[in-house]
Amino acid sequence: MELPESATVVEMLPRDGFQRYPHFIPTDEKVEMINALSETGVDEIECTSFTHPKAVPSLRDADEVAARIERHDDVCYRALVPNAVGMERAIEADVDKVNALVVISDAYRQKNQGMSLEENLKEVEAIVELADGTDIEVEAGLGTSFFCPYEGEIPQERTLSVVDRVLEAGVDEVTLATTMGMADPRQVTAMLTALFDHHPDADVGLHLHDTNGMSLANTLAAMQCGVDRFDASVCGLGGGTILPGGLGDVGNTPTEDLANMLRDMGIETNIDFDRLTEVAETVAEQLGLGTPSRTLMGGTREQVLATTDAQPAPKK
Amino acid sequence: MELPESATVVEMLPRDGFQRYPHFIPTDEKVEMINALSETGVDEIECTSFTHPKAVPSLRDADEVAARIERHDDVCYRALVPNAVGMERAIEADVDKVNALVVISDAYRQKNQGMSLEENLKEVEAIVELADGTDIEVEAGLGTSFFCPYEGEIPQERTLSVVDRVLEAGVDEVTLATTMGMADPRQVTAMLTALFDHHPDADVGLHLHDTNGMSLANTLAAMQCGVDRFDASVCGLGGGTILPGGLGDVGNTPTEDLANMLRDMGIETNIDFDRLTEVAETVAEQLGLGTPSRTLMGGTREQVLATTDAQPAPKK
Repeated sequence: MELPESATVVEMLPRDGFQRYPHFIPTDEKVEMINALSETGVDEIECTSFTHPKAVPSLRDADEVAARIERHDDVCYRALVPNAVGMERAIEADVDKVNALVVISDAYRQKNQGMSLEENLKEVEAIVELADGTDIEVEAGLGTSFFCPYEGEIPQERTLSVVDRVLEAGVDEVTLATTMGMADPRQVTAMLTALFDHHPDADVGLHLHDTNGMSLANTLAAMQCGVDRFDASVCGLGGGTILPGGLGDVGNTPTEDLANMLRDMGIETNIDFDRLTEVAETVAEQLGLGTPSRTLMGGTREQVLATTDAQPAPKK
Repeated sequence: MELPESATVVEMLPRDGFQRYPHFIPTDEKVEMINALSETGVDEIECTSFTHPKAVPSLRDADEVAARIERHDDVCYRALVPNAVGMERAIEADVDKVNALVVISDAYRQKNQGMSLEENLKEVEAIVELADGTDIEVEAGLGTSFFCPYEGEIPQERTLSVVDRVLEAGVDEVTLATTMGMADPRQVTAMLTALFDHHPDADVGLHLHDTNGMSLANTLAAMQCGVDRFDASVCGLGGGTILPGGLGDVGNTPTEDLANMLRDMGIETNIDFDRLTEVAETVAEQLGLGTPSRTLMGGTREQVLATTDAQPAPKK
């Protein structure tokens, strides 16, 4: 099994998690949680979204959050930008990277952003142009890359044609997002294989929701295709603001469960696992999330051994 | 990605699920649930365990259950047997297959069965001998094949040496069990690769618990090694009777989530998915389990599309 030696972990709690949380989280609490996340060893943190406050009221304090967080040199602080207006705010806020959102599904994009694909891609071009001459990197985050709750399965060529377009537009990296959490490992493998066939040097990441429970299996499939950058959210909190029913509440891959799998598999990350678990526990308590991940339920090797007071047998 | 074209699904609810359930499930209910499972298209059902009633009181009605269930020609009805005494009862009950339990970890086996490895293997030899001349197939189910809650990680060569021994003893198939649900995909791949190197024609299955949330990822890894037989339990119910804390309560891979992944991936099974989901819903209600699987939470493609009244886009 061919696997990367190390992986980059991108923490999505402050944007993907907070945006759908049913109550406005006070700015002080947001800043405190982001500061705590900065000390866990995650490589990047998506801190907020520079969206119109009426579109995503839960993140209406984006500028203040970006201004107040403590920044560590070894963490990349990024923000979602849906358009050129958002990009101007991101430049003002001096973030390290932006996630320029492109939604593949027409039905989802119309409901979410009220734009055609061409309008969406024009915004990406404008964002890249605005980034030019700054130090800000641009990632294109491709929503509904695999499945749309309104359109069903997204044909591979539609996603790949958008990948072509954003790379042409000059983005630094591309992230395929499941949005609804309905991808399966065969689909992920097929999509990534075709993508790397066309763009062998592209910097490709994956943003996995876990509605169908396959996000770690999809992570494994993606790593075998050469992907080594994964979005995740502490406690698994996350989900599109317009997802139907309560389905979006299943959220993202929990960062602590992703980190646990990578660690068990011997794939290096910068994560301090104990510190990350502490932050996850605090977040779960502050936001009333119960035990939203396997790690918080006690599902790691150390936790099991601690329960039995056992010492691990010496490794061969 | 090399994957099998089809997979065999073994339903463990009546044995692995019922054995740890906190209350005795009346025999009538057990029989009714097994009869319902017989109509879901699962290939095999582990109906009960012929264990001493004092050791596993929740399955003290094993003989009556085996006598009363309706048997379908296309379903293999099997039972766990911990020893030759259990095998005699299994022959009396006329099951199609037995799961002869061998625990790899000394600490776990001593607590669970009070036997040394050699004593355990002698029971397997006696079970195979008793099966000789009957139509009963013998599977060796190898508990704690990867990790023990008392000993930690199990070195590969210990598990493989037990595989050698049970194949030598003449069992028809071998199933590696995670028991504690702490295996990771790299470990599963390494173990199975080594196993097939030594025994390329062995009939090997996997019995995955999901404490760490990696059971579907481990399933994917195992399929890539050529494994196409998986144990699972409706609603994920299951767990060793002596597992520490509440950790065992995470249970097995839910059969409906396994079936959903196989279906999404285009790997054939005999399962009627709607029928299986109905049974899972009934079991969840009867046993008060809430929504114990992603499928019961609405996490399948059809369920998402039904929520939005959407018709799936035509597949390319």
